[in-house]
Amino acid sequence: MLEFRPIGLVNGILLATLATSMMLPAVVDLALGNPDWIAFVIAAVPTYFVGFAMALASRGADRRLGVREAFMMTTLAWVLVALFAALPFVWSELDLSYTDAFFETISGLTTTGSTVISGLDHAPPGILLWRGLLQWLGGIGIIAMAIAVLPILRVAGMQLFRAEAFDTSEKILPRATQIAGSLTGIYILFTLVCGIAYHLAGMSVFDATIHSMTTIATGGFSSHDASMGYFDSAAIETIAIVFMIIGSLPFILYIKAAQGRLDALATDSQVRMFFIFVAAFSGLALIAQQQGEYGDVHGLREAVFNTVSIITTTGYATAQYDLWGPFSIAVLLCLMFVGGCTGSTAGGIKVFRFQVLYQNISQHLKRVLHPHGVFVNLFNGKPLPDSVSGAVLSFFFLYLLTTGVITILLGFEGLDIVTALSAAATAISNVGPGLGPIVGPAGTFAPLSDGAKWTLSFAMLLGRLELFTVLVLLTPRFWRY
Amino acid sequence: MLEFRPIGLVNGILLATLATSMMLPAVVDLALGNPDWIAFVIAAVPTYFVGFAMALASRGADRRLGVREAFMMTTLAWVLVALFAALPFVWSELDLSYTDAFFETISGLTTTGSTVISGLDHAPPGILLWRGLLQWLGGIGIIAMAIAVLPILRVAGMQLFRAEAFDTSEKILPRATQIAGSLTGIYILFTLVCGIAYHLAGMSVFDATIHSMTTIATGGFSSHDASMGYFDSAAIETIAIVFMIIGSLPFILYIKAAQGRLDALATDSQVRMFFIFVAAFSGLALIAQQQGEYGDVHGLREAVFNTVSIITTTGYATAQYDLWGPFSIAVLLCLMFVGGCTGSTAGGIKVFRFQVLYQNISQHLKRVLHPHGVFVNLFNGKPLPDSVSGAVLSFFFLYLLTTGVITILLGFEGLDIVTALSAAATAISNVGPGLGPIVGPAGTFAPLSDGAKWTLSFAMLLGRLELFTVLVLLTPRFWRY
Repeated sequence: MLEFRPIGLVNGILLATLATSMMLPAVVDLALGNPDWIAFVIAAVPTYFVGFAMALASRGADRRLGVREAFMMTTLAWVLVALFAALPFVWSELDLSYTDAFFETISGLTTTGSTVISGLDHAPPGILLWRGLLQWLGGIGIIAMAIAVLPILRVAGMQLFRAEAFDTSEKILPRATQIAGSLTGIYILFTLVCGIAYHLAGMSVFDATIHSMTTIATGGFSSHDASMGYFDSAAIETIAIVFMIIGSLPFILYIKAAQGRLDALATDSQVRMFFIFVAAFSGLALIAQQQGEYGDVHGLREAVFNTVSIITTTGYATAQYDLWGPFSIAVLLCLMFVGGCTGSTAGGIKVFRFQVLYQNISQHLKRVLHPHGVFVNLFNGKPLPDSVSGAVLSFFFLYLLTTGVITILLGFEGLDIVTALSAAATAISNVGPGLGPIVGPAGTFAPLSDGAKWTLSFAMLLGRLELFTVLVLLTPRFWRY
Repeated sequence: MLEFRPIGLVNGILLATLATSMMLPAVVDLALGNPDWIAFVIAAVPTYFVGFAMALASRGADRRLGVREAFMMTTLAWVLVALFAALPFVWSELDLSYTDAFFETISGLTTTGSTVISGLDHAPPGILLWRGLLQWLGGIGIIAMAIAVLPILRVAGMQLFRAEAFDTSEKILPRATQIAGSLTGIYILFTLVCGIAYHLAGMSVFDATIHSMTTIATGGFSSHDASMGYFDSAAIETIAIVFMIIGSLPFILYIKAAQGRLDALATDSQVRMFFIFVAAFSGLALIAQQQGEYGDVHGLREAVFNTVSIITTTGYATAQYDLWGPFSIAVLLCLMFVGGCTGSTAGGIKVFRFQVLYQNISQHLKRVLHPHGVFVNLFNGKPLPDSVSGAVLSFFFLYLLTTGVITILLGFEGLDIVTALSAAATAISNVGPGLGPIVGPAGTFAPLSDGAKWTLSFAMLLGRLELFTVLVLLTPRFWRY
């Protein structure tokens, strides 16, 4: 039997926290005289109620979680929070259907950034703030999960980062609560610095607040339909590039750096490889853009900004990059799968898995030439266990298979192949916009059928939880006790 | 240093054999009074010359090949044979450019079946026979390579089938030459039976000859622009389905069956899984077809025929399946990657790799739930070594990465995404037609740029040689002696 009490306790606390954060947009709407404040207050009531009920019913829970309980808790937490966090969208003056509201919410919490709302420039401020807040809270949740939960659950090769987080031999920060504290501090600090920089570069305080939250979370929700293109400012785009990249690097390295180990960032092989990817794809994007009929409006600036926005899985846009021509479609589709570093707010396959993969391919090529040779795979200078390689390679395939299945399901809903494939990829990698006139940077996901929206909502969750965390719940073995 | 003499000897013999087989279409053209016979005779001259020169220069070669020599020999054999086999196309009345001729030849030898020639119905008979012959010779070459060479070179997980081929404990057929003899006999027998069946079902002797050769080789070259659709005969399509499937099953099992072990085919897990794939994808194709505006002309018959044609990587068509609608595009794109069983004439990723993959994913899910459990992967009831899993999973990724890179290169040549992606997939999987108006079942590859044609030629070779056989030649380590 699953022990439900620790699951209920954690989820109850999360819901209560969520309800409390609903007060923030309520206060803003009230101060600005917007009637939407009532939507947040009404939404908070059932959220508080269910949260407290769950926490109370789970009193006296064993604090030590089993493996299955940890899996159940993780997936359930994301689903439950999304179910309640969607309520303000339904009851606000936007009057979204629950399907649309849930899509927008899960897109926010998973820091994807796909939206069904158009007319953002005139949307109620509370709702805009709520969208930003969802991404910001989702972002810190993802980092915490990637540092503290997934490595211990050995999901999809994340066990590689197990020793790193709780590295007692190096005595960085032996206790989880201390890590959580440092992490939150660093996250808040980056958000503040980013917001101030945006404001100094010309954004209003409101825009700077929202964009700083969705930049550091590599989420990509904007308060303007034209996204970052609205500001048309090289300074703002540069700030965005810097903080999108900051949001995509392993946060555990910032903790180390804060401890005085500044070399941690410079010597990390994943970080180095990430920058190589950014440079290579920016070059390809530039070539693609120059080829297209919309070429050299902003040249390099446009190519680099949109490349960084996609590879960090943020999803801001300053150009309709899907109009650059067929070459850009191919390049950007590939780029959508890459993603940032592990232990960051970025989604995608993530850079370390490409490194593990490269090690395996290169080892196979060596073995083929020297059948009796002994070759050891390395990651960051340390031997790479076979179990990690197997998990990472399985993850890769499952990632692409899932993309294929979601594409087929969307094709079944009548979407053309570019829309279906790019929507599937952008959802699973938590990027945001897809390609083509509907889901591309100039469109929204609103015209899709309800079936397509639920499919994509599931895909966003699946990608965010590194596939296996969700899929393990679907195996008969999980329930066989 | 590479020991070039054994490489030269084998390739010399292959070229001499190729030159001899050029005499067959020459005789047919001569008998039918077609002036093209001269093209074959002229092409045979340099082919004989170079072949004999290489063989003579390599006299006294050590018969035991090193690993590197075996790799070099394998890749070089396919390239050299294609270079010379292309000559008749250049000098025939078709007057192809060398690029087109090479594309057509490599498409034939790798049993891909993509063509640059339109007006097949009125093409010279010698050329049509030559195309069929290239696929037929390529087919037996592929089986021999997959049974005898790749398992020993441990390429991409093929070592799984090492013991099987030379299974001395079971004493099937301990010696390679005996296997080669049985294999050739079985291959010729299937071709004859298929050809007679086609003729009885209404094909002319000439059409039956060509189509029997390109069916058993799962090649797909036809003597009609409308491919199998030309005959519009349920009987002919049924025969084609049966022999395309026969061509896609492991030929080693036919050898076993001929030895009286009839259960070999029935109990093989790869064969069973292949039929499950065929059934599942036929169902999906039927749904896709019914959805499209061209639905229920031939219903089930059309869906099954074209599914079998693609999954066996043959590439005959009886419908413009890419007009069935967006859902069919997504389904057929996925189908192009599957392929047949290993040790057959079929291309693609191949069924056993999906089985290995499934074992790995399922093992990872078990390990995640029971971190201290011990789980052994199985294939056909036997334990699956980790080195095979690693190789298979690397292969998977490399397959998809190669498809992505080829797609980007074709996008760079200006092709739209459906054309570029399906052309890349169809080339690497050695299927034949792609999707869309240009490379789809109703079009030809002729309008593509020379750059695109060479890119696709390389892709066909890469896919046919299971990627690693070619890629190993590109590593610095290969040359470092």
